[in-house]
Amino acid sequence: MSSVTFETQRAALADVVAIPVTPFAEDGSVERDTHRALLRRLLDGGITTITSNGNTGEFYALTPGERRLVTELTVDEVGGRAVVLVGVGHDLPTAIDSARHARDAGAAMVMVHQPVHPYVSAAGWVDYHRAIAESVPELGVVPYIRNEGLAGARLAELADQCPNVVGVKYAVPDAAHFAGFARDAGLDRFVWVAGLAEPYAPSYFSAGATGFTSGLVNVAPAVSRGMIEALRAGDFPAAMKVWEEIRRFEELRAAHGNANNVTVVKEALSALGLCRRDVRPPSKPLPADERAEVAAIASGWSI
Amino acid sequence: MSSVTFETQRAALADVVAIPVTPFAEDGSVERDTHRALLRRLLDGGITTITSNGNTGEFYALTPGERRLVTELTVDEVGGRAVVLVGVGHDLPTAIDSARHARDAGAAMVMVHQPVHPYVSAAGWVDYHRAIAESVPELGVVPYIRNEGLAGARLAELADQCPNVVGVKYAVPDAAHFAGFARDAGLDRFVWVAGLAEPYAPSYFSAGATGFTSGLVNVAPAVSRGMIEALRAGDFPAAMKVWEEIRRFEELRAAHGNANNVTVVKEALSALGLCRRDVRPPSKPLPADERAEVAAIASGWSI
Repeated sequence: MSSVTFETQRAALADVVAIPVTPFAEDGSVERDTHRALLRRLLDGGITTITSNGNTGEFYALTPGERRLVTELTVDEVGGRAVVLVGVGHDLPTAIDSARHARDAGAAMVMVHQPVHPYVSAAGWVDYHRAIAESVPELGVVPYIRNEGLAGARLAELADQCPNVVGVKYAVPDAAHFAGFARDAGLDRFVWVAGLAEPYAPSYFSAGATGFTSGLVNVAPAVSRGMIEALRAGDFPAAMKVWEEIRRFEELRAAHGNANNVTVVKEALSALGLCRRDVRPPSKPLPADERAEVAAIASGWSI
Repeated sequence: MSSVTFETQRAALADVVAIPVTPFAEDGSVERDTHRALLRRLLDGGITTITSNGNTGEFYALTPGERRLVTELTVDEVGGRAVVLVGVGHDLPTAIDSARHARDAGAAMVMVHQPVHPYVSAAGWVDYHRAIAESVPELGVVPYIRNEGLAGARLAELADQCPNVVGVKYAVPDAAHFAGFARDAGLDRFVWVAGLAEPYAPSYFSAGATGFTSGLVNVAPAVSRGMIEALRAGDFPAAMKVWEEIRRFEELRAAHGNANNVTVVKEALSALGLCRRDVRPPSKPLPADERAEVAAIASGWSI
């Protein structure tokens, strides 16, 4: 692994990191052609970093075979037009197997989902991520951190052992907490990706983030591009104009403990005629009387 | 499925519901003979309800093959001396496959782990559990609820459609919240199992629970039996004597966001010469200088 490769990976993270939805057919299976069409729409919209098997892709509702399918389909459809990260997780042998599969499929990085194990020790967190990172030294590794109790020093400890840990998707809803964590871990050592998408991107950028993840980008790539361009220019008022434009949409996604996070995105895509609204349990499509508002918001964006 | 069968299942839940550890060999694999010996120790200690593939068994660190192994080994070793629940979870096809495997192996019930999917809608929660319950109508089904936002009415809605939902493992650290949830769902309709073990058992019993889960029971079955007997007798002062006896042990398990929940149990078992202390990442064995306190506590119990 050359430093040139790592620089490419770092640059890819300092951008809009799109998390594609996984469209389902009427019979519930992954709808491959639609998935490819949605990916092309992202690429045509100027998106150059894509995470397959992220939470917006309903990672935890996909079977192991479907996760492999989505990885292969994504790398194939992207065909070099974007850098692909693949979300991996679950028990360690499964995560390592997924990471190696991502490498063999041609992905450049893996994003390690926050462990779902209920009993996470700080030292065990390092062990878990190290085992995955060491299994794919050729790939960049991006831990997804939602645990506000984890100390920045633990991430530094991980990276001391694994130089391929190049970036972090940080997702604690508190930009001051993020600022402290990033400095404790090493602000310049990692690319910091705001993991709570556009709503938190301005506050995270104010503290040192240079990329943000997005589910909304599935609906309106130009809106997400508008925000990253404003933030790169240091134009926070312009970024907040985008923030105001997407506020209601993101509030609908966040309501009821994020119950409809993916549901609302797919509802908007459905309103635009781009895919079915179906999500899998334990998510659920919106009731009919709540759909019009989402459609109205989506149709109002310059798409 | 006869009502007699359901009554047997309900009775089994109104008891100490043991969650066995999964012992690992030096090479990291599941140590089968030791696992069987630990199960026999529980049975000999008067335990008659056992949950394989629970969190104390490091469910999320086991591979699919290991989960099947643990189920089969447990049902075989128990041999009718106890009622076996099997923990199932992950994506729906995986959970359904695990439930059918549990049935075919001879288990009486399944416990459905709280969905790890980050976007859970209340209606989707019902759909997820219904799909699993309908796949094994012969088995009792016990949802494991850690989500304080779920309304009791949703559980009632599930049970309206699935009469095999016979009990609930409720694990919100607030007995007043539990009391409200149970009444909203139907206090007499389900067996209520205090899902946060001995520390919360007295307060949960005061509000209508009749069983509790336990990881500590792996170390000292007599201690857990002492608590259930006191609670059944309505003797709260006696139950609180047990509570005081186990307080420090449970505090060590709960510290740092439950980092050492299983670690401390296995440390005690190791001190007693019953299994290795090894836990899998993202958990981690205790540092050497923290082991003596656990050993001292375990040796002080009448084992």
